[in-house]
Amino acid sequence: MASVRIREAEEGDCGQILRLIRELAEYEKLSDQVQISEEALRADGFGEKPLYRCLVADLPPAPGDAQGQGIGSKIIRRVAQVALDQGCSQFRLAVLDWNQKAMALYKALGAQDLTEAEGWHAFTFDGEAMRKLAGK
Amino acid sequence: MASVRIREAEEGDCGQILRLIRELAEYEKLSDQVQISEEALRADGFGEKPLYRCLVADLPPAPGDAQGQGIGSKIIRRVAQVALDQGCSQFRLAVLDWNQKAMALYKALGAQDLTEAEGWHAFTFDGEAMRKLAGK
Repeated sequence: MASVRIREAEEGDCGQILRLIRELAEYEKLSDQVQISEEALRADGFGEKPLYRCLVADLPPAPGDAQGQGIGSKIIRRVAQVALDQGCSQFRLAVLDWNQKAMALYKALGAQDLTEAEGWHAFTFDGEAMRKLAGK
Repeated sequence: MASVRIREAEEGDCGQILRLIRELAEYEKLSDQVQISEEALRADGFGEKPLYRCLVADLPPAPGDAQGQGIGSKIIRRVAQVALDQGCSQFRLAVLDWNQKAMALYKALGAQDLTEAEGWHAFTFDGEAMRKLAGK
């Protein structure tokens, strides 16, 4: 099996990152929620004060698709290393309740479902709600 | 009613902020999860690369407790202003499913419960899980 290399994203990756964001949203049936542009991804991640960090997996060209190569596990292991290096006491992921494959992977890697165990719900204030609250 | 002033936190507020974190955790029955120290709050929020921003509400000395003065709404309005200024397309809050008072407030202010509406669950990798993943 060809080996996968996990590395920090560079600004030139933003086009491909946006493609993957859109593919994930399509899988999650939430494509209408993807409003970000490649330009915004570049500005947010690679300016003076980066708002996010991103890891990417480089795959050697090979037949077939990228699934089943353990890329998810490898990226999560690297995230754990980064989080420990930064002094974090935990890191969190959000997952849809019907995405049993992802939930099973996260649990197998040692994660706990806080919504199930403690009852945490995620609330969002969207653009319209924010503008109303801010009086704009 | 005495007026409440919302302002950016300063490093000298960290002792009081930690006290409020502990009071909230006690209310949430999760006191055992509070591991952060005042020193870490100072380092994380007021160093070269701040990891969080914090708003505080200053109350004039008054009899009775601080509840019922609309402080929650005022802070959330200010968060909406900050988020819009930063170019955010949304902001999120996490709330426990038995905290009906908080959920009712957030909904009244225009928030949507994403766990209820779309099925989002929060997964956490804690310190032990991270160390296992990172091989440390």
